[in-house]
Amino acid sequence: MDGSSPATQVIGILGGMGPAATADFYTKLVALTPGRRDQEHLKTVIWSDPTVPDRTEALLGRGPDPTPWLLNGCRVLREAGATLIAIPCNTAHAFVPRISDRAGLPIVHMIGEVAQHLTRRGPSLRTAGLLATTGTVRAGLYQECLARVGIDVLLPDRTSQANEVMTGILAVKAGKRSDAVGEPLARAAHRLTDRGAQVIIGGCTEIPLGLPPQAIPVPLIDPAVVLARALVRRSGAR
Amino acid sequence: MDGSSPATQVIGILGGMGPAATADFYTKLVALTPGRRDQEHLKTVIWSDPTVPDRTEALLGRGPDPTPWLLNGCRVLREAGATLIAIPCNTAHAFVPRISDRAGLPIVHMIGEVAQHLTRRGPSLRTAGLLATTGTVRAGLYQECLARVGIDVLLPDRTSQANEVMTGILAVKAGKRSDAVGEPLARAAHRLTDRGAQVIIGGCTEIPLGLPPQAIPVPLIDPAVVLARALVRRSGAR
Repeated sequence: MDGSSPATQVIGILGGMGPAATADFYTKLVALTPGRRDQEHLKTVIWSDPTVPDRTEALLGRGPDPTPWLLNGCRVLREAGATLIAIPCNTAHAFVPRISDRAGLPIVHMIGEVAQHLTRRGPSLRTAGLLATTGTVRAGLYQECLARVGIDVLLPDRTSQANEVMTGILAVKAGKRSDAVGEPLARAAHRLTDRGAQVIIGGCTEIPLGLPPQAIPVPLIDPAVVLARALVRRSGAR
Repeated sequence: MDGSSPATQVIGILGGMGPAATADFYTKLVALTPGRRDQEHLKTVIWSDPTVPDRTEALLGRGPDPTPWLLNGCRVLREAGATLIAIPCNTAHAFVPRISDRAGLPIVHMIGEVAQHLTRRGPSLRTAGLLATTGTVRAGLYQECLARVGIDVLLPDRTSQANEVMTGILAVKAGKRSDAVGEPLARAAHRLTDRGAQVIIGGCTEIPLGLPPQAIPVPLIDPAVVLARALVRRSGAR
């Protein structure tokens, strides 16, 4: 933004899933906005409702449907003046088809943005490894979006998914930041790169909080960064 | 919070002053909330409006009054369901007397909370050094609140205020995170500890982002942390 053409979008962040990931996402959005002073940054409203029922439990048929909570959040953001909605939670994207018609605002689709981002890395990228919640994996969100751009998704086996990926994600949600978090995630990532993954998608917003990029031998894609860049582009603050 | 008594408060954060400080404040609030899973965290709504006119410029009579922007933010937070308001910007507290009657919600006063916090450090604490914007210093916010609890405030001299403190704050707002930010702030802090300051108050939310606690020989008080702890206590999430 050059100061003469202020951004007209008001970013609505449907957050709280989890709250640490929401804070991290807003931090990244601010850092990636090229403002030199406060007044060049983006107007943003954040609804952070950590009481939204667990998305993975719902997708596995073991818990309540979070759709009403998500629709309530969209209403709050709309009434607060947001002009578009970003959801910094991968698993919640499984519910986007249920809310998009009723949200009243465009939803910038994080996983669709990741697919577009990966195509920009060039045609030699054919295989991406996915670290995500069991809910995201079962819902097939990345598999579907990446298939459309010709990229295969490699998944952890059942044991690694349960004992390494979910253990790491839940440890981040519980506020742990030690090696106890990063090591199981790094082991799961290495199993995927050994099988040919050319990038690792940190497909749960908690994963980049627990897994340092230097712990794996290929690029770590952070969907939160990809989404933040997409918002900056769309808002005209570039 | 023990899970059986969920917090009933909805935290409203009047932010954007600046946006990086708002992101940092929400990160601290989440980290200081003792939840073990998402659902134990606090419902929070954040209105981050970086277009609020510069608070220091207004206090020095060189820019527009930010009061209408602050009242608009209070309205958004109230309509979104917030039950109390926190303002993670020290300088904006100079305008609290103009908005508190019309905000429609209680404002948890960051500087008042810092005064209470300092009294809990014991009666030997008599002198605090203040690093803050020129607007905060001129408005006398800390001087007034700390005088009420019997603590003197030491201020940088005019040259240090302009060339070290404001230079450091504006560098953080511009996204700089290098030694170029920390060194002038640390020099200003050392001048105050040389004169007898027993603690340094990082009295602008940008300062703890640029000044590492280990760079100064006395405790660095971060008002954002003090405010976050006050919110956690009041919300019942302890």
